[in-house]
Parts: sequence; C-alpha cells; structure tokens
Amino acid sequence: MAGAKGKARRGPKAHPAEDPVEGLIRGELKMHELDETFGAEIGTQLRRAAAERATGTRMRAVASTVIRPEEARKNIENFVGASQIPLGLAGPLRVEGEYAKGSFYLPLATTEGALVASVNRGCGVVNAAGGARAGVLADAMTRAPAFVCRDLAHLVATRRWVQEHLEAIRKAAEGTTGHGKLLGISPYAVGRTLFLRFAFQTGDAMGMNMATIATEAAAKAIEKGTGARLAALSGNMCTDKKAASINLTEGRGKSVIAEVSLSSKLVKERLHTTADAVVDVNTRKNLVGSAKAGALGYNAHFANVVAGVFLATGQDAAQVVEGSLGFTTAEADGDGLYFAVSLPALEVGTVGGGTRFPTQQECLNLMGCAGAGKARKFAEIVAGGVLAGELSLMGAIASGDLGKAHARLGR
Amino acid sequence: MAGAKGKARRGPKAHPAEDPVEGLIRGELKMHELDETFGAEIGTQLRRAAAERATGTRMRAVASTVIRPEEARKNIENFVGASQIPLGLAGPLRVEGEYAKGSFYLPLATTEGALVASVNRGCGVVNAAGGARAGVLADAMTRAPAFVCRDLAHLVATRRWVQEHLEAIRKAAEGTTGHGKLLGISPYAVGRTLFLRFAFQTGDAMGMNMATIATEAAAKAIEKGTGARLAALSGNMCTDKKAASINLTEGRGKSVIAEVSLSSKLVKERLHTTADAVVDVNTRKNLVGSAKAGALGYNAHFANVVAGVFLATGQDAAQVVEGSLGFTTAEADGDGLYFAVSLPALEVGTVGGGTRFPTQQECLNLMGCAGAGKARKFAEIVAGGVLAGELSLMGAIASGDLGKAHARLGR
Amino acid sequence: MAGAKGKARRGPKAHPAEDPVEGLIRGELKMHELDETFGAEIGTQLRRAAAERATGTRMRAVASTVIRPEEARKNIENFVGASQIPLGLAGPLRVEGEYAKGSFYLPLATTEGALVASVNRGCGVVNAAGGARAGVLADAMTRAPAFVCRDLAHLVATRRWVQEHLEAIRKAAEGTTGHGKLLGISPYAVGRTLFLRFAFQTGDAMGMNMATIATEAAAKAIEKGTGARLAALSGNMCTDKKAASINLTEGRGKSVIAEVSLSSKLVKERLHTTADAVVDVNTRKNLVGSAKAGALGYNAHFANVVAGVFLATGQDAAQVVEGSLGFTTAEADGDGLYFAVSLPALEVGTVGGGTRFPTQQECLNLMGCAGAGKARKFAEIVAGGVLAGELSLMGAIASGDLGKAHARLGR
Amino acid sequence: MAGAKGKARRGPKAHPAEDPVEGLIRGELKMHELDETFGAEIGTQLRRAAAERATGTRMRAVASTVIRPEEARKNIENFVGASQIPLGLAGPLRVEGEYAKGSFYLPLATTEGALVASVNRGCGVVNAAGGARAGVLADAMTRAPAFVCRDLAHLVATRRWVQEHLEAIRKAAEGTTGHGKLLGISPYAVGRTLFLRFAFQTGDAMGMNMATIATEAAAKAIEKGTGARLAALSGNMCTDKKAASINLTEGRGKSVIAEVSLSSKLVKERLHTTADAVVDVNTRKNLVGSAKAGALGYNAHFANVVAGVFLATGQDAAQVVEGSLGFTTAEADGDGLYFAVSLPALEVGTVGGGTRFPTQQECLNLMGCAGAGKARKFAEIVAGGVLAGELSLMGAIASGDLGKAHARLGR
Repeated sequence: MAGAKGKARRGPKAHPAEDPVEGLIRGELKMHELDETFGAEIGTQLRRAAAERATGTRMRAVASTVIRPEEARKNIENFVGASQIPLGLAGPLRVEGEYAKGSFYLPLATTEGALVASVNRGCGVVNAAGGARAGVLADAMTRAPAFVCRDLAHLVATRRWVQEHLEAIRKAAEGTTGHGKLLGISPYAVGRTLFLRFAFQTGDAMGMNMATIATEAAAKAIEKGTGARLAALSGNMCTDKKAASINLTEGRGKSVIAEVSLSSKLVKERLHTTADAVVDVNTRKNLVGSAKAGALGYNAHFANVVAGVFLATGQDAAQVVEGSLGFTTAEADGDGLYFAVSLPALEVGTVGGGTRFPTQQECLNLMGCAGAGKARKFAEIVAGGVLAGELSLMGAIASGDLGKAHARLGR
Repeated sequence: MAGAKGKARRGPKAHPAEDPVEGLIRGELKMHELDETFGAEIGTQLRRAAAERATGTRMRAVASTVIRPEEARKNIENFVGASQIPLGLAGPLRVEGEYAKGSFYLPLATTEGALVASVNRGCGVVNAAGGARAGVLADAMTRAPAFVCRDLAHLVATRRWVQEHLEAIRKAAEGTTGHGKLLGISPYAVGRTLFLRFAFQTGDAMGMNMATIATEAAAKAIEKGTGARLAALSGNMCTDKKAASINLTEGRGKSVIAEVSLSSKLVKERLHTTADAVVDVNTRKNLVGSAKAGALGYNAHFANVVAGVFLATGQDAAQVVEGSLGFTTAEADGDGLYFAVSLPALEVGTVGGGTRFPTQQECLNLMGCAGAGKARKFAEIVAGGVLAGELSLMGAIASGDLGKAHARLGR
Repeated sequence: MAGAKGKARRGPKAHPAEDPVEGLIRGELKMHELDETFGAEIGTQLRRAAAERATGTRMRAVASTVIRPEEARKNIENFVGASQIPLGLAGPLRVEGEYAKGSFYLPLATTEGALVASVNRGCGVVNAAGGARAGVLADAMTRAPAFVCRDLAHLVATRRWVQEHLEAIRKAAEGTTGHGKLLGISPYAVGRTLFLRFAFQTGDAMGMNMATIATEAAAKAIEKGTGARLAALSGNMCTDKKAASINLTEGRGKSVIAEVSLSSKLVKERLHTTADAVVDVNTRKNLVGSAKAGALGYNAHFANVVAGVFLATGQDAAQVVEGSLGFTTAEADGDGLYFAVSLPALEVGTVGGGTRFPTQQECLNLMGCAGAGKARKFAEIVAGGVLAGELSLMGAIASGDLGKAHARLGR
Repeated sequence: MAGAKGKARRGPKAHPAEDPVEGLIRGELKMHELDETFGAEIGTQLRRAAAERATGTRMRAVASTVIRPEEARKNIENFVGASQIPLGLAGPLRVEGEYAKGSFYLPLATTEGALVASVNRGCGVVNAAGGARAGVLADAMTRAPAFVCRDLAHLVATRRWVQEHLEAIRKAAEGTTGHGKLLGISPYAVGRTLFLRFAFQTGDAMGMNMATIATEAAAKAIEKGTGARLAALSGNMCTDKKAASINLTEGRGKSVIAEVSLSSKLVKERLHTTADAVVDVNTRKNLVGSAKAGALGYNAHFANVVAGVFLATGQDAAQVVEGSLGFTTAEADGDGLYFAVSLPALEVGTVGGGTRFPTQQECLNLMGCAGAGKARKFAEIVAGGVLAGELSLMGAIASGDLGKAHARLGR
C-alpha cells in the first residue's frame, strides 16, 4: 500500500471524533484504542474502513464472518474479520486408541490440492487393515526460564535450592491454575546461566499459557529464595515454536504413536506396491535423506496433516513446527508391512486457545472432541490421520504413482 | 464421533441415488465422487449433511463461507466449507527494502491473544527508528529426488553424467513450466543413493509444485541417461515441511534479512530498557538457550508472525516449519542497538496456492502484494513484520514487562 | 603396500612352523594366534617382521617402546609396538574446584604447533585472574539398548514393566560390577522400538565397558520379563563416539563447567583487547557461526585441548567427539570479563582403559590424578585447561593477534 | 600436584642461572624460553626435571622416546617427551579404489580391547567378498572467516564485491601457498555478519594451516576492498573440530565412500547372521536411534577406527570429531547384502602435520602412503578400514555375538 502513512501525513487535519477513520489514518487514533471507545463491533468496522481507505482496497470477504468481534477480544487485537480457509473432510478413519475408539472424520483446512484426497485414500487403507492403533506415551507442556547466577558456585547452590524446595515451588506454580500440575523440573547449565525446564500436565488445554503463568510464579519464588535473576521467562529450552532436538528426543505436549499392520495382499491391492518397496523408500527418503539434510523430521509430510487439522480445530498454527517432528517407520513384518508414525511433540488442546471459535468448535464436535476430557482422544485421532497421510504418500512413492496422482488432481 | 461407520452399518440399506446422504454414511457412495455427479455445490451440501447426520453434529458456521465450492476444487478435495480464523491488523510498518518501499499493514490471522498487539507495538518502535531495512539475499525453491545406483562406481558415473548434461536436464525441467528457471543441481551421496538437490527460480509462486513437476521431468531424463533408478521424487533433502539444517544453512525459498537501528533514547522511551539488556537476553535465550536445546530456530517467535501472515494471505501453513528457522541478532552499536532478523527459508508466493481465495486475496491487496511481480516485496514486508514481533517481545523480556503484558491482555 | 597379499600368494609355500613370518604373509598363520603359541614378546616381533617383509618397510621406531607386549594384551590385539606422539606441558594452572584445588601441569600430546604455547599463555592469564573455578555438575555414563516390541501395546507394557521392576533390573545390572551404580533408565519410543537409556555412576573409570556389561545383564532380565527382543545392546541413543544433541543437552560422562573473572586491566594487559571485543567475537563466531553451521560445538577449539590431554593420559581418543561438545560463553561483567566453558560430555577415567600404560600413568601422576578417587578432580583440571585454551584463542582473535601468533610459531 | 606453584612461592629465591630447575618452579624462568637459551635437548630435560621436582613424580617413560627434541619444535612447544600409545595391526585389507589398489595393513593405535580384533575380523570378511570398493567423492579443506558489515546494504555490497573480484581474491590466497588451490567461496549471512566459506584443494596435506594462511591473505584483500571488518579468521562455519551439519551435508576434507557386496552365504558363514538381520539392526540403531538422539553420526563406531588410524599416522586427533560423521548403510540386495560407509569429512594428509614423526612415518610407509601423491589413496584405505570395522560390529550385533566377543577378549 506504499504510502498509508504518507497519505495520512499529507491530508488536512480533522478532529478524530468527527471522522475516526481519518484519525486512524493520520495516526491520531490508534487501532487498539477503538474498541473501548466505540465497542468492538464499531471498532472493527472503523479499522477496516481505515485500512481500506488508506490502501484503496476492500475487505468485504474478510468482513463476512461468523465470528463476532466481541467474542474475538480475548484471542486477538485489532480484529477486522476472518481469514477463511477451505475445509475438506477425510475419513472416516477407524482408530483404536486408549482414548479414541471408533471411526472419525478428519477435518482438514488446506489449500494444497491432493492433500485431502491422499489422506482420505490412506484412511481407507488403514480401515481395511483394521484401523490405526494409537496411544499417548507422554503428556507434558514445558516452559524453561533462564536464570543468571553470580557464578558457578551460585548456580550450583541455586540448582540445589530448587531440588530442595520442590514442594514450595510446586505450590507457587499450581496456585496460579485450576488444572495444571507440575510434573517436574529439569535443570540445564551453560556457564552461569541456569535453565529450568518445567513440565506440566495441563488437562485438556494445550497449556502454553497455563505453563507460562505457573512458571512465572515459580520463577519469582526461585528468584526470591536464591538471588538468581530471571533473565527470560522463556529461555528457549522449552522449546516453543522452534524446531529443537530436545522436543524430538524428550517430547513436548502429547507424545503420540499410531501404527497399522497391513497384509501383503492389502499392500498390493490398495497401494499397488510391496512391503519391501515401502521399507526401501522409507529408509532412503525419511531416514537417510532427512539425516543427510540435518533434519529433525524423519517423515514425508507430517506437517501437512498436522497443519490441516490444526487450522480446522483452533490449534496454534505456529506449533505446526513441533508437529512436524518425528518418525515414520516401516518394517517388513512376516508377510506384510508394519507401518507407524511417532509424533513426540503434538501440542494440542480441546479447550482454550482458538478451540471455542464457531467453525473450530464445529470441527471438534464433528470429531467428538470438543471440550473437557477430550485432548488425548483428539491427539490419538490426529496421529491416526498422520498415519493415513504417510501411508498414502509412501505407498504412492513406492508404487511410482506420485507423478500421476499430482497430474490427475490438477496440481 | 465414535460410531460414524458403526451407525452406517447398523441402518437399513437405502438406494444411494434415493438418499445420497445415507449412501455416503454407509460407504456406498464416496465423498470424492459426489462433485462429478451432483456438481460442486450440491456435493458440498451432501458431504456436510452426511457428516452431520453420522455424527449428530452441525456445521453451520463451516457452511457459512465466501468460498464458492467450484472455486475450491483445484485446492482441496471433499470440500465442505471453510475454517474461519480471526484476523487482526498490525502496523502500518515502514519498510525500506529493495522491493518493498513504504508503509504496510500486516494482516495476521491468529487466536493467540497479545500477538497482534505485540507486533503492532513493534511496528511503532521500528517506524520511530526510521523503518525496517530489508532485503532478499537468495531466492530458490528446491526439490531433491533420490536415485539408487548399482554401486559406487555407478553413482560416480551418474553424478558425472548430470554435470555433463546440465543443459539437457535444464531443457527437460524448464519444458514443464512457463516461469521456472533451473538455477543449479547439488549432488549428495550416501552409500549408493544419490540425492540431487535441484534449485529453481519460480517467479512469484511459492514454487513447490512447479519445482516438483520440473524435477520429475528432469529425473526421467536422468534415469534414461544413466540407468540410475528414481527411488523418490522427494528424497527429503529438499527439505520441505521438515525442519532441517540444510535450510537453515543454505536457505530455501526466499532468504530474507530485516534490520533496524535504534538510538538508546528510543530503546529507553519505547522499550523501557537498554541496548545492553536486549543484547544480554538475546544471547542467553535466542543463542545459548536454543543451542543447548539443539534447536534450529535462534529466535523468540518467528513462527508466530510467519503463521499469522501465512494464514491471512494463503501461504502453505505447513511451511511455517521452515519459516521458524533463523536468527534474531542484537548488537550494542555505539550508543544504540542494532537489531536484525534473518530468515533463511521463507517460502512464500503471491500467485498460486491459496493466494487467490477471497479473504487471502484481500489481505494481499491490502499489502499491495497481490499477483505477479510481488513475491519478493511480500517477503521483505513479512521479514519486517517478524522484526517488529521480535523487537517487541525481546524488549518486553529485557524490561521485565512480559508478565504484565500478558496479564493486561487477559492471557 | 599394494601387494602384501599378492606377494604372499606368489611365493613358494613354506611350513609355517619353520618360518612363521612367511606363514603370516601367506595367511596360513593368523596374526592374532601368535601370542598364544609363541608368547606376546615373540608374537609381537613376528607380526612386525611379517608386516615389514610383506611391505618392504621398517618399524624400528614403532618397536622402540616402553610398553611391554604382555601388558598390552588386555587393551589391544595384534600388538606391534607403540605410536609415539610428542608431549608438551602447559601450566601450571591454578584450579579451584570441588575436587581439584591447587596448581596443575597440563600434559598435552599433540602435533599441532602453537597449541601448547596458546594453552600455556591462557594458563598464565587464568592464574593472574585468581585461577579457574570449576565444578562437576553431573556424572553418569550411559548405554541405551534398543528393544523390538510386537506392537505399540507391547511397547507400552514393556515400558511399564521396566518402571515397575526397577529394583530387579538394578540388581541384575549392578551384579556385574563392583563399582557401577544404576542411576536411572530413560525410555524413548519410535514406532515399536523401545530405547532404554541406562545411566550409571561408574566411579573413577570412564565406565563405558562397565555400563555395557551391566546393561547387558539388565537387558536379559527385561527380555525375559517382557518378551521384548533386544535388537542392539547399543541403540545409538547412548550416544557413544558420535556427536549427538542428547549429549549436548542431557550430558554424558562428566558434565563440567570452568569459569574465570578477569578485570578489564588484565584483559587489556595480558590479552591486548577488551571485554566487549571478546564478547563480540564469541557471539559472532562461537554462537552465531556455529549455529548457522548446524554445529553441536559452540566453542573455538575444545577438541584441541581435550585431545591433547586424552592422548597424554590414556583416555579413549574416539571420545574426543563428545569432548568437543559444549559452550564457550563470554559476558561483559561490570568493568571486566566473565568467561566460561561448559563441557556436558567429558568422558574420562583415572583407572581402567589406557590409564595404566607407562607414559599415561606418569602424566596422570604429574597431575595428581592417577588411580581411584581422582576422576572428578581430573575432569575439573581438564575443564580448566579447556578454559585456558579458549581464553587464549579468543583473546588472540579479539586482539587480531592470531595471524601473527601463527607466523611466529612457524605454523 | 596441589602446590606446584605454592611450593615455588614458599622456597628461598635462587638465581635461575644457577639452578634453572628451581627458576622454572618459582616461575622466574618460563618453560618456553628454555630452548633458545639451552637448546632443545637441554631445555627438554630441564622442563621434565622441574615438573618432576615440583610434583614429586617421575617422567621416565615419557622421556624414553624416539622423537628428538629439535625435530619436535615445529609441532609442539614445551616438549618433554612422548606419549606412547599401543599399536596393533589389522588386515591386510583388500581395497579397490581409484587411488588405492591392493592389500593394506591398517595400523591402529588404541587402548580399547577387542577393537583391533574386530576390525581384523571385518577385513577378513571384506577380503572374502572381493575387497572394499572405495572412492573419494570430494576433496576440499574449508575455512570460513566472519566479517562485520555496517548494515545489510553493506553486507550485500560486500558479497557482490567478493563475487566480482574472485580472481583477485584467488591471487591473494594462492600467493601464500605452493600447493593450495582456491576452489570457491560460499557466502552465508546472519544479520550484518557475513561468513565466507573458502574451499581449497590442499594437495597431500590435511591443509588446515594452508587454508588458514591463504584465507587470511584473502580476508585482508576483502577488508581493503570493501571496508568490511574481519571479526574472526575462523567464524566456525568452517567447521573445524566441532561436529556440524554443514560438514555432514556438504563435506570437508575428503568425502569418501567404501562399499562391499556380500553373498548370503558369506553373511551366514562369516558373520553368522542374515542380510535382513543386518539391515534391521542398521535401521533401528544407526538410523532411527541416532536420529532420535539428534546425532550427526549415523554409524556404529566410525570414530574408533578413525581415531586408531589417526593416532598411528600423525593425523590431527581433534579431527576425529569430523571423522565420526557419516553413514553406515545396509541393503538387502537380491540374495545378499550391500554394505557401505560414507564419510563426508575425513580430514587427512600424508605430508605435514604429525606425519613426519618417526612412528607415524613408519605407519604411513607400511600403508604405502608416506609423502606426496598419497593422500587420497590413504583416505580410501581408511574408509576401507572403517567399512571393515562397521561390518564386523554390525554383524556381531545382528548375530547376538557382541556380549560373547567382549567377554572373550576380556573387556
């Protein structure tokens, strides 16, 4: 819009109250101050109007939304409407988990042609093999503040203090939350900087905010008790929204595995290939290729399915980063194929965050996963969907169908 | 929805043509076959109706969309409506790039409270410092097929053949595309597997599909010329949608840097801290903390801003993974602060993919970035937005304001 | 020697007993069978003679060793003599650790000109600053077998069985060793493969063999109790002799930190630079440069000092890999410089391995570190030496002296 | 020795000339000043005597060396003697490389019991399979200085200047060396720091010093031509003596692959296992296990063999770090087993460094690899030895023999 600001400066000065749109463009009014003065509904219209006028463009589609401005306030500032992302359904997919038992549709919001079709095909193959077996192997949201100590001796003393005052720290942390439970604190030292990785059980919320607030309270207690200075409430060893080995190795959020066993007949009839061919491609591409690239994702396209479900169900899209971590493994198993996906850091919730928005809530409902008591069930279904997506794509590569599939679907 | 399939099985069998919804639930009709028979509009309604009936839930909000089913067909299968994600505006942000010159609004689709406010604050500080200087340092989309050779000698011969037939390979590759240009091919060998990382200039498209199709044509020529067997069109050294060192080091898509220089007065008045404090936090958190965690993201929250803009403008959400890579650097500079963000793998386009959908096109228009000739401009603005986001958050941490900001914004 | 085997084949066949050297060359006798027949002394001579004759070369220097063949048998097979590596002394270095208190010479075996001089200079600077403060923050040798389970359910059951039978497993493990104590077992799952990372306290031995043998006993108990199959006694998550994030993050062997505080006067007079300059170089090179390269070593040359001491004192040279991991951190501290090295995976022992050989034992004695009760003391001194080496090199870079130093020392 | 320095301070002050040993202990004389005054022979004796007296220990074995002090001066300072490391022979091993053709003994200096025996067994199996095929796929020593630019625009201009003045830079670099050839310069930018990774062909020297000196001359030309400031001659993107993805991916020094094809009969008779079992273990341990640990070494024990040969032949022991990088790959191949090792960063030389010392020179001679024109031959043989070591160990694991082997060899 080259000149939004410029234009504003050039125009004659109007009283903002008389024309708040002009006031916004001139910078005399601030976008974030409008809701308090005019209410969220009018504030939203004014922001849109100002942006439209300043840039000479229109935001009709953005304005056409089921989201009510008032409802959006806890989750966004300077609200102007919605981004609408196409939504497709894959499945139903049969999942036999500890929490998820049954058949489930997978809502996927995406603009990548062929993705839903591919996952859908995978669901069919998994179903034909009796469904995806899935389980949540660990469940802990982490936050790792960094403390500065005076020197090594002080760091060692601080670390010891934390070990010896775990109950007091727990009390401080859990006092901030109704649902969070402190599972443990892992210390890491570099020079005189002490990182403390707090792990919380956060119920059905993804839990990043809960963990942050609880950790802040704990950090204050530690500062007070030890004299160490809190340098950053997040010291990046959490690790949130950055790909990191610590998450690949130790996990974060839900650590989920889904697996399926296919007979050689099924591999042949539905995937048009053999177990050996799938294993061979998986080794060369997902293991050796990824390793040679210094990757932290040993899979074909976890992120596609994770992103699709995240956008559909109100998860944090930036945490697709962690969702991309993990392994696809394939083993020739007797006469058939053992195929599994391992997602160490699937960070999801069924309450809080973006889950309560209209389309998101509908998609969670569709999966039987809205609200309390559903987060692990949801994680197992997502893992099942990732399994279907990997199986379909790896099968296509092994059978040499990939190019044809892309061409057919117009990509 | 435990039982979608189950229910279907239990009901009496109706002729699908009489009640296609029942036919879908029973599995006699396939979701992806509907559009051809009934048209996209009716097909979409039938899919929704079937999913609703099978699960006993409703998808009214999903159905309420500005996206027309017919338009969605190239980008999604089994379309049922849209996911609506709240959209807020930050800025305007002043950017002085090679391609982007002026002030630009940043549309951010997110449900993370405080994010838009924080980026918005950062924009103000950057503007007060004269704007973000930005540049695209490299621009290449990659695809890396894996070939199996008979043995080491064959691999060496294949590698040599590729070097000696670069023009023929280029011709095969570029024959598939009107815009893509082959920039080069980097070979990598592990055992007898040869990975060839193709790099393309892809104009204003993000270019993954273009690169894939062009690489496929090239791969066939290589198979024919050498006898090496194509094991996988993507051998994961691309690396697409997985975090990988090769992208952090060598780049993928747009490699962009944005920087700003702040006087100490500005740091004090607007960020309530000092250059030294920002540098100290940046070192402990973004460099040391990330390194100790084995991370590939040496920043605070690139992914938040990248995801926000990606969802708003029709980029591929799964490529937030690559967008999370990179560095925030802070240096005490004479009396002030030099602050920069380096994003080696920002994979964006202003044509193709999801960019043509209604709200996405509006957001690109708002930024003056819709259509051809705008991709590098867009990349520079996004980098500027990431700079604003990092500066605001790092300033808040350095000043100890973070807890207060979260509390104030109701997170 | 192109043709060792070839020559042997061409010659006339002699009875090996008549001329064992010819027998060896012809392959009728095996090198490793000699000691039993002829004794270690003669066996050693015969091997040398055969190799010399087959290749037409001499091994006089190799033969001229203080190591007696009989003594070498537990540590090497097919012994023919010794490799002699030049040994220099740096120091004395003042160390104030928990275990090491006093001044210590650092014996360094190396052929890299300028290295000993540089470490020696660093010792002088550290001494002038009051010595290196050092501490061992963790001490655990790890071994991680990989088990194959039937499926996910079996993996979960196996993991639970291990948790519930920790005492029985400990008994099995500790029954194999007089010194090792099992500290804990960390489980990691990928598909149906279960990795169990065993951590042991191994007294004054480096402990890899102790840990291996104890883990093998434990693994048998686990196999028997669970039906999971041991695929590999080392499943590479240990991680031994490969650089790995898990070691950088979680540590292996001794996790040691050494630090020193220098006044600005000292930085100026002895290093000819300033604290700010050292911090700046450390950030650009050791943090940003390493990170951009996807490195696991955030330091200048840990490996040089670690290798020098390891070769001098009988440590395992292959574990220089782990010793290269870690951080050099530099902070402007009031008027001066805070400087530290953090080595998360220093794998050393003062008993066992190569420590009992003649020159190695002398070097350990020189450091007051031979035998039982000395391993942590030794680790602290090594960390102090690494600190001296980093300080000297970083000071030289910051002052621009590096080129001159290299030229002066004839490199 | 707690008190070396302390003792010195307590004693009465003697004139150093009268008793230089006392002078050394008191710190009035410096260890590195002795050679100039007394000559290297006497200087060496004095240093030993001082260290012995200060610590109350003896260095007889250290003193008993074939290395003449005068000869050691270019490679070490404060020389006091030698470290003697047991040396054993494996092989002969048949190698069919581009440069190495024939059968070669592998001298291994190690104190790890069973290692030589295991490699030796591997040599036998490889020989029975027709030998190791090997090749050098790349050969380039790198050095990556870091430059500070004023801002992004200056960085871009500097990068362009370098591209446009490649011939002038080459002239400056190659003017410092008789053997080195500049192959190329790869630029990497983070904020306003520009890393330039210089790649050199360094003949038969490992080449680190050659590359450093040549890069320094080039860096001066770049500083002069662009105004960018050289912050560090090594900016850690080289990456030397730190494990780094850039080396795993792009290579450094010699990139070498060695492979062997075994019939199923041979696998059964000599390794007591099957191809499938070897493949299975390789996948679980060397690929999945390493990946889950965030490792850069996808092999069993490259570092053991690399270290053994490096210590025997005068290579730089700190570069075992890079030698530990790389892949072991195993594939079921028709009826047999294809087995390969890929070492992307084997940094070796046959001239310079420690290669000219007595035992080292003998070991190089034994391999037919001493002096000019031998470095690639040497690299191929080492890769062959690594192949033998991996094959033997992986076979032992697959057959379940490992525990027994260790017990038999007394480890």
